[in-house]
Amino acid sequence: MRMIDLIEKKKRALPLREEEIRYFVEGFTAGGIPDYQAAALLMAICFTGMTDRETAWLTDAMAGSGDRVDLSAIPGIKVDKHSTGGVGDKTTLILAPLAAACGVPVAKMSGRGLGHTGGTVDKLESIPGFRTDLDRRAFLKIVETVGVCVAGQSGNLAPADKKLYALRDVTGTVDSIPLIASSIMSKKIAAGADAIVLDVKCGSGAFMKTPEDATRLARKMVDIGRACGRRMAAVITDMDRPLGHCIGNGLEVAEALEVLEGKGPEDLREVSLVLAAQMLSLAGKGDPALCRQLAQNTLDSGAALEKFRQMCQAQGGDVSVFARPKSLYEKAEVYELSAPMGGWVCRMDAEACGRASMLLGAGREKKDSVIDPAAGVVLCCKTGDAVERGQALARLYTNVPERLEQAKQALLESYVIGPQKPEPQPLVYDVILGL
Amino acid sequence: MRMIDLIEKKKRALPLREEEIRYFVEGFTAGGIPDYQAAALLMAICFTGMTDRETAWLTDAMAGSGDRVDLSAIPGIKVDKHSTGGVGDKTTLILAPLAAACGVPVAKMSGRGLGHTGGTVDKLESIPGFRTDLDRRAFLKIVETVGVCVAGQSGNLAPADKKLYALRDVTGTVDSIPLIASSIMSKKIAAGADAIVLDVKCGSGAFMKTPEDATRLARKMVDIGRACGRRMAAVITDMDRPLGHCIGNGLEVAEALEVLEGKGPEDLREVSLVLAAQMLSLAGKGDPALCRQLAQNTLDSGAALEKFRQMCQAQGGDVSVFARPKSLYEKAEVYELSAPMGGWVCRMDAEACGRASMLLGAGREKKDSVIDPAAGVVLCCKTGDAVERGQALARLYTNVPERLEQAKQALLESYVIGPQKPEPQPLVYDVILGL
Repeated sequence: MRMIDLIEKKKRALPLREEEIRYFVEGFTAGGIPDYQAAALLMAICFTGMTDRETAWLTDAMAGSGDRVDLSAIPGIKVDKHSTGGVGDKTTLILAPLAAACGVPVAKMSGRGLGHTGGTVDKLESIPGFRTDLDRRAFLKIVETVGVCVAGQSGNLAPADKKLYALRDVTGTVDSIPLIASSIMSKKIAAGADAIVLDVKCGSGAFMKTPEDATRLARKMVDIGRACGRRMAAVITDMDRPLGHCIGNGLEVAEALEVLEGKGPEDLREVSLVLAAQMLSLAGKGDPALCRQLAQNTLDSGAALEKFRQMCQAQGGDVSVFARPKSLYEKAEVYELSAPMGGWVCRMDAEACGRASMLLGAGREKKDSVIDPAAGVVLCCKTGDAVERGQALARLYTNVPERLEQAKQALLESYVIGPQKPEPQPLVYDVILGL
Repeated sequence: MRMIDLIEKKKRALPLREEEIRYFVEGFTAGGIPDYQAAALLMAICFTGMTDRETAWLTDAMAGSGDRVDLSAIPGIKVDKHSTGGVGDKTTLILAPLAAACGVPVAKMSGRGLGHTGGTVDKLESIPGFRTDLDRRAFLKIVETVGVCVAGQSGNLAPADKKLYALRDVTGTVDSIPLIASSIMSKKIAAGADAIVLDVKCGSGAFMKTPEDATRLARKMVDIGRACGRRMAAVITDMDRPLGHCIGNGLEVAEALEVLEGKGPEDLREVSLVLAAQMLSLAGKGDPALCRQLAQNTLDSGAALEKFRQMCQAQGGDVSVFARPKSLYEKAEVYELSAPMGGWVCRMDAEACGRASMLLGAGREKKDSVIDPAAGVVLCCKTGDAVERGQALARLYTNVPERLEQAKQALLESYVIGPQKPEPQPLVYDVILGL
């Protein structure tokens, strides 16, 4: 087999065979296939695509390039959840304990944030003492006893994807649906869950800008998961405005706690319930409507909050934050951004909100930037809200006041205020089942 | 400027600016831009193409990446000729002395053959003593005194093209018209002639398989040459069958000598006259019809042959081959391939004929293979000829009899013999003028 033949084939839009895809993934990971040939193949894939079978083979080859987490010691159907990433997305903090409180074991490995905002691991670490760097044994032990554990990625999961992603990043070959889908799914497949619920975001703050693109990506990932023997569901949700009001690590934990108390912003609660319904349903707890009711009751009863407390305790976190969530962000100074004019919030640039939050200290500008857990933004108004001139649009939390003006500017520019109330936008676009 | 932005731009089919193309060529040649980013850009170009302006900028940047030959010391309009390469193509051996005999100075640098058959330099070196490794001074001195010199490429001509071509070769990005056109033209522009005649071959033995593709490539090259201030013409000629009867270095010199004596195969003479007419016309010797007559008279008078003899002598070649051309190939054993059936030669695979010739020792299988000047093939029948069963199709000349059967097989498979005389095919498809 010769790499040049694979490139020529893909260039002519011909499908690769399974052994050709394995040859590429193994050769590239081991270093026998040089970067320049891999780059040429990736660019050809951007133009000619991949069939569902090719994408599944690519995913499986990447998933098999490193460790595979074995969750078989934990009884029951283990459910994982993955979000394609958005601003203010703290649903994992709600869903993991919620599913566990409903009797579904959750063994979740999460990442840190590389973009504007922190990842789930960064958010959890805003709870003093909370440990996410658990070894495999400790991780599984907590899942066994508490029913849920959220840890950082440990071990060598899908190294082929890691190497390939680094190359895609510098060769303009990121935005290909089969490449995105296989990259995400290879890590999920290697992480060992039996069922996976995908939250595919679309809008100004998401990688996929339209519901159509998000749906294409979701279908591709659901197909891959099924081809790899996983139970799958995907939910297409809105990310044209941030989810909830809070952006920033400690602020987001506080907001998640509100939802776990049966309160919190309506959009965040709704998206959490839709995703929870799919997670529980995949785990065999009944049809989605029934599961939604179960999730709702579990939230409102406080059982999910209690589960989160148990998980927090098991992972070394200071549970006093449950009584005083304010402690999660009170170490930052608060500033206000007021509306320069009255009217309706017609549109928001969610990505700009994330950028503002990063400038305040809540995200990483560079790989080695240190996150300030107390920093972030609380949005007082979102798309569809009426505002009066001078009214607070947002509160900014920071310990780097020298960045304040820049962050305010970014935030201000993210709001489009107009004279008419905008048409309401859906929060959930579609649910794709792969059973 | 960032290479990733150039890749993204080209991927979205947007044209690059002149400074972006220079940034890429200079950065890649100097090593600052890595191979993998260059490979991604090249693949994107294969899919989205380049405008005429982009292609001209790329050519100019590559031409300027190394030495530029200065021919200004030689009076008159210096004409160069380039063939995109074909089997049995020995027109340079005829055209260079022919143009010089008509008073047009020819300072030609030629390459060695990398594919099946030898290049012009390999062919000339089948004449004992003939030297092609001349330094710039000796080269120009011969042009000045004799009016013509054909030497190997010396100096550092278009190193950017050399490096880029090596990358294209291993990344499946060879077959892009703007990349092919700029690669050829960058070397021609750097070689310093005022006028360039292109012989763009099409058919089974050429890189361009159809007249349409050949015409597209020819137009692109003519446009590039004009944008770089050169007088240009291109002729689209047939390469569905080999040109002339002889393939192999010594054999081809012998056949060129026949044409220079006013004899030789009709197709080879005709293509030579069409190309010569364009060369002379670009050099200001009148309109192409007039120039063709001038070329014809010069061939038939023996003046072109005499010019070749002078050039040969000036370059150290043994001129006794003019009296005994047989000496050029008589050191090889001769074998015959006879027709397995009677009928008409309906089609030939010119590339397979070249491959057969290579197997016999006339070409290079690897970069460092040594060429046997006496080896090759003489085609007794070509497309359109009637054959009887048992009649000689071809004669094979070789000193490696162990390869004979394989060569015979390749040659035999290259002939399609059928019951009906095929429609005659044009020899010259089109002439494209760029004045």
